[in-house]
Amino acid sequence: MDPDFSRLDAHLDDNDLDGYLIHADESDADQRYLSGFTAPDPFTTLYDGDVHVLTSSLEYGRAKREARAATVDRLADFDSRAKIEEYGGVEGQHRTLAAFLAEYGAESVAAPGDFPLGVADGLREQGVSVDADHDGVIGHIRAVKHDEEIAHMEAAQKANERSMAAAEAMLREADVADDGTLVHEGETLTSERVKEEIEVSLLRDGYALDTTIVACGADAADPHDRGSGPLRANESIIIDIFPRSKETGYYADMTRTFVKGEPNDTVREWYDVTQEAKEAALDALEAGVSGSEVHDAVCDVYADAGWPTLRDDPNTETGFIHTTGHGVGLDIHEYPRVSTTDNTLEDGMVVTIEPGLYDPEFGGVRIEDIVVVREGGYDNYTDYEESLVL
Amino acid sequence: MDPDFSRLDAHLDDNDLDGYLIHADESDADQRYLSGFTAPDPFTTLYDGDVHVLTSSLEYGRAKREARAATVDRLADFDSRAKIEEYGGVEGQHRTLAAFLAEYGAESVAAPGDFPLGVADGLREQGVSVDADHDGVIGHIRAVKHDEEIAHMEAAQKANERSMAAAEAMLREADVADDGTLVHEGETLTSERVKEEIEVSLLRDGYALDTTIVACGADAADPHDRGSGPLRANESIIIDIFPRSKETGYYADMTRTFVKGEPNDTVREWYDVTQEAKEAALDALEAGVSGSEVHDAVCDVYADAGWPTLRDDPNTETGFIHTTGHGVGLDIHEYPRVSTTDNTLEDGMVVTIEPGLYDPEFGGVRIEDIVVVREGGYDNYTDYEESLVL
Repeated sequence: MDPDFSRLDAHLDDNDLDGYLIHADESDADQRYLSGFTAPDPFTTLYDGDVHVLTSSLEYGRAKREARAATVDRLADFDSRAKIEEYGGVEGQHRTLAAFLAEYGAESVAAPGDFPLGVADGLREQGVSVDADHDGVIGHIRAVKHDEEIAHMEAAQKANERSMAAAEAMLREADVADDGTLVHEGETLTSERVKEEIEVSLLRDGYALDTTIVACGADAADPHDRGSGPLRANESIIIDIFPRSKETGYYADMTRTFVKGEPNDTVREWYDVTQEAKEAALDALEAGVSGSEVHDAVCDVYADAGWPTLRDDPNTETGFIHTTGHGVGLDIHEYPRVSTTDNTLEDGMVVTIEPGLYDPEFGGVRIEDIVVVREGGYDNYTDYEESLVL
Repeated sequence: MDPDFSRLDAHLDDNDLDGYLIHADESDADQRYLSGFTAPDPFTTLYDGDVHVLTSSLEYGRAKREARAATVDRLADFDSRAKIEEYGGVEGQHRTLAAFLAEYGAESVAAPGDFPLGVADGLREQGVSVDADHDGVIGHIRAVKHDEEIAHMEAAQKANERSMAAAEAMLREADVADDGTLVHEGETLTSERVKEEIEVSLLRDGYALDTTIVACGADAADPHDRGSGPLRANESIIIDIFPRSKETGYYADMTRTFVKGEPNDTVREWYDVTQEAKEAALDALEAGVSGSEVHDAVCDVYADAGWPTLRDDPNTETGFIHTTGHGVGLDIHEYPRVSTTDNTLEDGMVVTIEPGLYDPEFGGVRIEDIVVVREGGYDNYTDYEESLVL
């Protein structure tokens, strides 16, 4: 893939900067995107129109082969050992980085908002000017996906759908014990067992995930509760899966809500109005609109049906208590927002659309797809039925 | 667990600071340790003798239940919406955090070296003094494990051993095809297949891992090469597994090297001298010594046998080209170092001991255990045979 860094060039020009500096490991999406290199420990990338990577001896050989960089240097090239011996580990590291920057004439740099404070202040002590880039220019660049990236993300969502299907199958196959708990293959069907099947399915497909949400009943009323313990009939079960491709680094994200048995009337009503809210969001969605317009469409549907939303009552603890969606890419939560925030959605951006309603008295409902914003509309590459009752 | 923050109190006293501030998500070990809370998006923790947590509305309910905090507030308590509307998203956030700090009288704070630069500079603009804590005081506190933590880490290493055993079994069961590649259950045995079995084993035990190393031959010559493609007889295969408990957050770490068939003489020699180097490291290891003394013991064994080390030749690209070990806990790489760095090992610290030799012409060998430093010695809770030839 050949990223388009013209927006970054403009940022450097407009702000009279010599370069853009990142110091982070592979889990940092901007680092991965800018350098094309992955390593488990932090390394340094300078962009000044070209990409310059600085690594340890350990990563040096692989970086030379794999980084998408004009130059690859290692700490030893800037006498890091001698600097550390003379000035100590901390100042020695800062002096080494300063020497690297001097090699490329970078006296004044921008750095991401999450650049490590200690390194920034240390470079400042060495006479380098470091300005936090609050706008997150690389996040803005990454927000618009190349076709190659969308292909990676579609593949991820396909794997996601396979794991959701495995989870749904377990719920369908389960029996209901006298106490209302679900039983599968002779054992109580717990949140943990369903999560394990989801994660094994994804792992065999080459996807990693840290947390999966399989939340039943009152657990489902807390949108970030991962869920635990026995699953029960007649209660809403929210399954939210957001795996990452181990090879490409791209994420998928999807949520479905199920009930085994008979949902109570409130949950049924929530499901219907949430489907309506999701449709309204998609109707509003196209390149050129603000994420806030899409979020308003969702909040309006909920408000009209009498349900509280954070937009209208920032202190509510029930109802629609999160945002409509977020960008997805090399990060699970990235630019843009589909919330009260005003930001323009552009062709090629990938966002989730995930309305939901929550109340500990009844449980929770959420339905989430992931779509590509397009001129005049969108492309929903999530292909999974929405059916509440199993 | 009841962490001992007296070292943090002393740091604040010595530096005339009102508090220690962290702004990070659950993947940040210091954040997890200080707040006792896990959330996928960044939240804020202030320590001033008490722990004060600040979250979004979404996490608020769960934080009140789960954080190990004297107080839990949410952004709405400090009029974040109004501040964002008046000053924009970035400055609005900074003003909200500043109001939170003002609530607890914190005008001057220390923050970890990896505190986000944008937030630090933003708080500075609001009149808060923010100093990077280059020593990483919480990392120093976390380095000494409580019995409860060691129990978590021992459990993790047991799960790790089970997955290593599954991998070793596949290698033992494999046949050798005419072209030297391994065949298992009728299909070529690749690095990817072995990794998948390791990761499924760990997943079913409740452990997550992003990367696993199963590196054969020349791949094994690069210590961070994860390996790929068919495994081959008569070449060294390095298997390095470092899983994290999804529930507790603690890591395990272990490496074994295997050869299916006949290793060449160099690999045999490497294995013997690496076992010797590992023994020398453990002989040197006890509370009160510096990590550099343990590293020296390893380098001396290698040097005496005629192999290059980074200690003696910082530019070498073959031989012993990394450090002897590192602390492990809520991070996979944490304080202390077992390297040329001078830092004192204390009773209760957990470190890896992982000598190795590498040369693309022959492959690589590494053997790694994880041990608890003790008065007068250590406690090696890794229980896995070291045998090169399968």
